[in-house]
Order: sequence, then C-alpha cells, then structure tokens
Amino acid sequence: VDRPVIEFCFDYASPFAYLADYLVDRDFADLPADIERRPVYLRGFELFKQGLPYSAAKTAYLARDLTRCAEHVNVPVGAPARMPINGLYMLRAHIALAGRPAQELFRKAAFRATWVDGADTSDPEVVVQLGETIGVDHRELAAAMGTPAVKAELRANTDRAIDRGVFGVPTFFIGDEMFWGHDRLEYVRRHVERLACGDAEMSDPDDA
Amino acid sequence: VDRPVIEFCFDYASPFAYLADYLVDRDFADLPADIERRPVYLRGFELFKQGLPYSAAKTAYLARDLTRCAEHVNVPVGAPARMPINGLYMLRAHIALAGRPAQELFRKAAFRATWVDGADTSDPEVVVQLGETIGVDHRELAAAMGTPAVKAELRANTDRAIDRGVFGVPTFFIGDEMFWGHDRLEYVRRHVERLACGDAEMSDPDDA
Repeated sequence: VDRPVIEFCFDYASPFAYLADYLVDRDFADLPADIERRPVYLRGFELFKQGLPYSAAKTAYLARDLTRCAEHVNVPVGAPARMPINGLYMLRAHIALAGRPAQELFRKAAFRATWVDGADTSDPEVVVQLGETIGVDHRELAAAMGTPAVKAELRANTDRAIDRGVFGVPTFFIGDEMFWGHDRLEYVRRHVERLACGDAEMSDPDDA
Repeated sequence: VDRPVIEFCFDYASPFAYLADYLVDRDFADLPADIERRPVYLRGFELFKQGLPYSAAKTAYLARDLTRCAEHVNVPVGAPARMPINGLYMLRAHIALAGRPAQELFRKAAFRATWVDGADTSDPEVVVQLGETIGVDHRELAAAMGTPAVKAELRANTDRAIDRGVFGVPTFFIGDEMFWGHDRLEYVRRHVERLACGDAEMSDPDDA
C-alpha cells in the first residue's frame, strides 16, 4: 500500500493545535506516514467569525484542560500574551517560508513563542522579529508576508478546509477520514497502522 | 484519606454522556471512589438554550466521532430517533426513582433505548412505557415525574452545576476539580489514583 499522508490543519491561534504540533513531531516519527501541514485561518471558520464560540465557563475550563493535557503528555505551556490570539501574521509568514528549512524552524519558534513564552505574536512586528531569531531577514519576511500570493494561499487553504467539513483545529485528514482535536491523535495513529496492515476497515464512514 | 466521590453530571440527551455512563459502570468498578450521578438539564445551559451550539459541519463530525469512539471502547451505539434528543422526561423519571433499585435499571434502560435502540425517548409516553419494562407502574411513574418536587430538584441540580462552571455533559467533579467529556475519563481515573496515594498535586488549579 502507498505510504499514507496525514494532512494536519492548524492555526497558531489554537493552543491545542500547538499541543498537537508538538506531539506529532515528537511521537509520530515512527509512524509510516507523511505529515503535510495546512495552515488555515481559524477566524475564517463559521464558529470563530464572531470571536471564540465559548461561554465564559467553557473558556475557563479549556484553560485548565490545556494545562492538564500538556502536563500529562509532558509538553511545556505558559500563559499567552492575550486571548484570543490572532494567528494571521504567523500563518502568512509560514506560507511565505514554504520550501525552505526556515519554515520548520519558524513553525516551532512561533508555536513556542505564543504558547510557552507568552510573546504577543498577534502583532506582525513581533512575527517579523521572530523570523530574525531563526535567520530570516526582517525586511524580506515583512515583504513576503504581504504579497497577494501568500494571502490568497491562506484563503484558499481555509476555504478548502471548510469545504471538507473542518470547523476548528487541530484537524487531521487521512484521505477523507477526519479527526478533530489533539485528543484524537491516537485515533489517527491507529488509522495509519490499520492502513499499513492493509485493513481499510475504518476508511469508509458508511461502514461504521 | 477519605474515599473520594466522583460527581457525574449527565443528561440523557447527550450521546457522549451515554458513552461515559457505560464506561464508568464497566471500567471504574475497581476504582477506589464512589460515583454520584447528578441529572442536569442540558437545555438549561447557556450554550444549549438555542439548540445544539454546533455548525452543520461540527454536528456531522460529532456523529462520526461518536461512532468511532464507541467502536474503540467497544460500546454499542445506534442512530437516535431524532436530534437533538430532549432528556427532560427521562431526567424527571430518574429523579422520581431516587433511592430505589429501579433507578439504576431505569438509567441503563433509558440510555440504551435512546442511544442504541433509537426509541423516541423525548416523548414522555415512551419514558413511562420504559418504566413499565423495568417493573415501575406507568401511572405511578407518570404522576411522580410531574410533581413539583421532582421538577424543582432537576432545576436545582442544573443551577448548581452552572454555578460550578459546568457548560456541557458529561462533566465530572472530584472536589472542585472538573473534567469534561468521556475522553477525559482517564484523567478522572488518574486523579483518583493520585488522591489514593495521598498525592494531591493536581487538586489545586493554581499549582499547575
């Protein structure tokens, strides 16, 4: 069978996307699958257009849940500079760095700055400075982030995700099978392992 | 240390509460804790007052997720008679049967009827018939479900849950530590096990 692809839709604005990104890097190295990350803009999704779609009680719980989940899987997490985070400029920088080793460095640095160090990465200036720390010239990155092609790619990614049924992040696809939440990563793993065994039992939603 | 109590807030309307109820009965028998179930009315919660707080995409995903989660933990699940389910009459019957062995029989029968057999348990007549199947006289149950005391207890349970920060079900409390979702039952288990070892490390949110 072909080596499966795990498409990983994320926005830097989501702390659970941060957690998933960290876990995929750390724990999926042995998995016979390729990871393809898809930066999408959470504020383009129906549920997030008017801000976070949570009551105050749910927002408070999610902060506690994040701490607990991060502690359980031994991933560092700190208080963010603000809530909600706007991932727009990090997403654009990510896309602008496509095809370069700097993209992976930027991704790790941006997630860490936002969700461990409490840097105010909703601010495009902070994002450009973050680029400098991984060796990307700040003028070059600022210019690249503002190009119509980069903006269009982020919009297209987001629209395509919405068309496929994505409503939040982190979301994972293996083919058309969709998984939402860092707490479904073990389901993603099992799905890949079943495919590797030639057992496509779970690949068709209508079978279930 | 005292034997801890797990308070389990649920509404029959939630398929994930069904899953949690099944798993608690099956998998927590060995846990050194007492389970106290708290029937609460989901439609009394801010997020659910206007119906299900999900986009069409999220609703579709949750159905798939339910199937996948149930399959993973080997719990039967079937298509419901309608969505959303109204748990009101099952909740009132549950409260009306307090202190009797029939309550547990009713709970299992009501969850199963709703989430395995596709019975239309939003209908009070169906709930009363369900009582008959576990040996409760239908006139007696119908009368008990309509008493002011039963209605008041459900309202009080719901208000108290909201005051404690509950925004959906299933929700679990161990003391003031709150856990939401059947997919946090392993966190509930670990919390109880740590308490049993005299390690209260996770019991104070401010420590984290």
